[in-house]
Amino acid sequence: MTRIETVDLATTTVAYYAPATVAPANAQVIHVAGQPGSTSGGVVPADYESQIHLALLNLRKILIVAGASVKDILKLTVYIVNYNPAHRVHTRHIQRFLAGHRPAITLVPVAQLAASGWLFEVDAVVSRPVPKSVPLPLAAPPARDDVDVVIIGAGLAGLSAATEVLKAGFSCAVLEARDRVGGKTWSQHIPGDESAIVDVGAAWMNDVNQSKVYALAKRFGAEVLEQNTTGLCVLQGANGKCSTFQYGDLPKFDTVTARDVVRIRDMVEADCHTLDPERPHNMEWDSMTFEAYLRSRGAGPESLATATVWTRAMLGQDPRDISALYFLAYCKSGGGLLQMRSDREGGGQHLRIRQGTQMIATGMADALPEGTIRLSSAVCTITQDGSSSVEIITTGQTSIRARKVISTVPSPVLNTITFNPKLPPAKQLWAESSTYGYYTKAMMIFRTPFWAEKGYCGLIQSFTGPASVIRDTSSHPDKKYVLTCFMSGDPGRAWAALLTGQREKVLVQQIGELFGAEVEARRDFVNMVTYEWVNDPYSGWGCPCIAMTPGVLDTVGGPLIREPVGNVHFAGTETAVKWRGYMEGAIESGERAAAEVVEATRVVPARL
Amino acid sequence: MTRIETVDLATTTVAYYAPATVAPANAQVIHVAGQPGSTSGGVVPADYESQIHLALLNLRKILIVAGASVKDILKLTVYIVNYNPAHRVHTRHIQRFLAGHRPAITLVPVAQLAASGWLFEVDAVVSRPVPKSVPLPLAAPPARDDVDVVIIGAGLAGLSAATEVLKAGFSCAVLEARDRVGGKTWSQHIPGDESAIVDVGAAWMNDVNQSKVYALAKRFGAEVLEQNTTGLCVLQGANGKCSTFQYGDLPKFDTVTARDVVRIRDMVEADCHTLDPERPHNMEWDSMTFEAYLRSRGAGPESLATATVWTRAMLGQDPRDISALYFLAYCKSGGGLLQMRSDREGGGQHLRIRQGTQMIATGMADALPEGTIRLSSAVCTITQDGSSSVEIITTGQTSIRARKVISTVPSPVLNTITFNPKLPPAKQLWAESSTYGYYTKAMMIFRTPFWAEKGYCGLIQSFTGPASVIRDTSSHPDKKYVLTCFMSGDPGRAWAALLTGQREKVLVQQIGELFGAEVEARRDFVNMVTYEWVNDPYSGWGCPCIAMTPGVLDTVGGPLIREPVGNVHFAGTETAVKWRGYMEGAIESGERAAAEVVEATRVVPARL
Repeated sequence: MTRIETVDLATTTVAYYAPATVAPANAQVIHVAGQPGSTSGGVVPADYESQIHLALLNLRKILIVAGASVKDILKLTVYIVNYNPAHRVHTRHIQRFLAGHRPAITLVPVAQLAASGWLFEVDAVVSRPVPKSVPLPLAAPPARDDVDVVIIGAGLAGLSAATEVLKAGFSCAVLEARDRVGGKTWSQHIPGDESAIVDVGAAWMNDVNQSKVYALAKRFGAEVLEQNTTGLCVLQGANGKCSTFQYGDLPKFDTVTARDVVRIRDMVEADCHTLDPERPHNMEWDSMTFEAYLRSRGAGPESLATATVWTRAMLGQDPRDISALYFLAYCKSGGGLLQMRSDREGGGQHLRIRQGTQMIATGMADALPEGTIRLSSAVCTITQDGSSSVEIITTGQTSIRARKVISTVPSPVLNTITFNPKLPPAKQLWAESSTYGYYTKAMMIFRTPFWAEKGYCGLIQSFTGPASVIRDTSSHPDKKYVLTCFMSGDPGRAWAALLTGQREKVLVQQIGELFGAEVEARRDFVNMVTYEWVNDPYSGWGCPCIAMTPGVLDTVGGPLIREPVGNVHFAGTETAVKWRGYMEGAIESGERAAAEVVEATRVVPARL
Repeated sequence: MTRIETVDLATTTVAYYAPATVAPANAQVIHVAGQPGSTSGGVVPADYESQIHLALLNLRKILIVAGASVKDILKLTVYIVNYNPAHRVHTRHIQRFLAGHRPAITLVPVAQLAASGWLFEVDAVVSRPVPKSVPLPLAAPPARDDVDVVIIGAGLAGLSAATEVLKAGFSCAVLEARDRVGGKTWSQHIPGDESAIVDVGAAWMNDVNQSKVYALAKRFGAEVLEQNTTGLCVLQGANGKCSTFQYGDLPKFDTVTARDVVRIRDMVEADCHTLDPERPHNMEWDSMTFEAYLRSRGAGPESLATATVWTRAMLGQDPRDISALYFLAYCKSGGGLLQMRSDREGGGQHLRIRQGTQMIATGMADALPEGTIRLSSAVCTITQDGSSSVEIITTGQTSIRARKVISTVPSPVLNTITFNPKLPPAKQLWAESSTYGYYTKAMMIFRTPFWAEKGYCGLIQSFTGPASVIRDTSSHPDKKYVLTCFMSGDPGRAWAALLTGQREKVLVQQIGELFGAEVEARRDFVNMVTYEWVNDPYSGWGCPCIAMTPGVLDTVGGPLIREPVGNVHFAGTETAVKWRGYMEGAIESGERAAAEVVEATRVVPARL
């Protein structure tokens, strides 16, 4: 494909933008009018960063409608009111928007913009390769469908969908890009010890309101481990100082701070419960970042820091990077902020599986007819040529025809698949604007549970990092003592930039400080197990679940995400109504998509 | 031709600009430097709106020279000093400039621009379709000319020109797009009454300084009706309140106001008389709008309102939409503001014709040799291929060859004719930048002249509208009682947007209020006769005469307008030196162009 060429000097190659760009010859040139930070409904949030998100979203919408993409931008001109060169807030968001693409950029500080209240505006010059007129292939003799349903992805969503469509009498093939099943559930042996397992992906469930995953786990013989909440928790404040508190209590804030933290927590809880989980909608909350929402409600510094721990541990995101509505709807899907964050009965982190969570997927896969799952088969192309069936081409040019397709891949993975015809604009926007934060679990394995011996339950939260949250994920039956450190958001990114030895060292040090056990931590540290989901193309370069910037959810969110495109249906935990981002949500989404397919195919399946 | 594509979201289609535009592939891209609001002589008016007009004119000049047009603009970036988002003055002028084309636009409020005093600047990116290389037709055998002179338009200018060239011994054809002669003179029977006539176009002349039209009218047996100025006039002030005054006196203003109105009126009168009617020139006055000129002379609110009545009733324009020099030169062409506006002896509105003014054109047409006038023959193409003759092609692909052509169409109509080769830049600028205001005469027919019975002469002026000026155009010999309402400028546009029934109703109500005769007006109202010149393509979408925004007259005005292009000569009332916009001016222009043709063809005419 004809690509934009960048012109660089020796000194400019490290900049996130290029000194100059060259449009390919014969490209059409698109000129985009100044895009302000307002929602499609015309809401202009008071907050600067929210406006940046919305303006970039508006630019993205136009690119999609114009048949272009971020990679086609030749030039951006950014207009900023009240610009502060000491605090270049915009670069973070523009860099993420560009995702490595380097257009020419000019920044113009201005005293005001066209409408009062506008703080940020961006216009663009974009190159659009002239679409080659590809002659349609001569009508092939009507191909017999290879299977009734192709399912893309052998994670919990895909395996659940496969189980259901087979049950309904359809034939089915599951195409899995990886050489294993399980998707974002992935259980690994602790190095040098075949007896014990750590989960580098999804790890928790409960037996109260996650009936689907719990039933499956039990069916395949899962032994559950209850999350420990007995003993002292630790808070590491913004100054690095640590204090203890009982699980369920508030950290030891002063009275005024404590009152504010409770107020903000209860407000988020109450607000999220106003939302319809099927179709979350609130134009104001979707116009702003979660940080802007918190600030607009007068949240104090500790409340903001507390809320930052939530978004980091739950999504790997900082509050200024995501829509307030998205976060509130995410909480609501798990029964509310408190339940989703809880380690106790009915909470999101109540039970683990001694054998590792991947055993569910393995069990489901084993229960499918032989040959159903095709590993190492990444999907390249999905063609709906107007006939009643869909052609799917995988790496290696293997072609398979099906009457229906269920995609269970995370939305960013959709960008790697060529759809013929292109996905409709709302689906493209979903795929292109979904973002992961930074999220890695570092499992720190120790010889002894020295923290428990000192009376700590193992749960900590930190306003400073490098770990934002730590949980005890030991398996006492296996005599394996593990602290799982949630490395996420900005501190997680900073930590990821260190060399491996250094990464272990700073975590051991943080753990020592947290539990007043520097000596023990150094002495008993055995090993660190971790996995960089941000480098995994098949998870869409992240974990556990995508998030949305302001404006996206109101445009593509809720039921629209789940809408099929022709004979292609969409599942995956991010499309779930309940327990989005969790194993429970993945299973729900797979079953829902399977039901759609069964419902849409009322005639007796061909293979019956 | 390859056209710019606009990219629209569902929410943006009503905006006057597009979110994005796409240049056709293979188009050349023109980058236009920031154009400030200065005249070609470097004058920068102090006034913001005058600068907008000039900057847009400068952009238009560049487009023309570059071989592009407003329709080819991809992107405008507008830079505004002292921008006030609550008062978006620029949109009115940019919208008119764009005339329905929708480029991408970014507005950038700035603290200052490149030179001190600059308040507005615009730059542009423009697509220029690569001209197709049309092979020249093989040289045809030298065609014998069909006629010596083709005249375009059978209005008073064209008929006068035809009369003159025939008199000089040339053969001649008059091509008229309409199915009637008379152009902007058009007399219609009052519905349901064959005995009486109203003029929906030109209506007035005089016998003192309009000798050409008066002589023609008399030659064809016109019975003249003198405009009544006996009785009370009415002024409707800005607050809607009415007061009376004698014709020739000043309305009842307070002393200070009266002094200001007299000062401004006398200043306009004096200033216009400094101009050479053949070549009006004043760089300062042409750099600014008439409104800016008035404000720069300290005109008070009532003086401004009074001057607004002048421009509305004379040109359908508001003072901020036209060049001060253009208005002053227009006045000068009619012997000055006072004479042009006068209803008394020697004034512009002194005499009417009982049979309607179209009788002059009909009379002239009947006097021409049979077959001279070809009705329903709109000209599509005029080709001057370097040979000594011109080829004219009309609708229906009829071709006619002539040695000379006289175009009498209003300048906006020139845009609808394809010239091969293109008209030179100055003529293109004239055609593209000439603008009509809104101007419609609504003839209100009543059973009785109730206003006269109450002692009113029938002349009113209103600062509020809907009618800005009303004149009694009754024909007492016919017992027809008519008030002609001048619907013009912004109040005229607002009135035109009403439904027909509503239009009549608000005018009857205004008339009732003006004459303190609500009951009589309602009781005696019979009918309204009106014609929307803005929808008439053959008048160039307007009446009575085009006007020019700042900067145009100094570039193309005066003698340049009348300069022939090859064998094509230009006439029409807007090219007249005396009584521009009037029937007298039309006749003068036709005779002048005929004289040019005769003079340029000194050899004995071929047909003699």
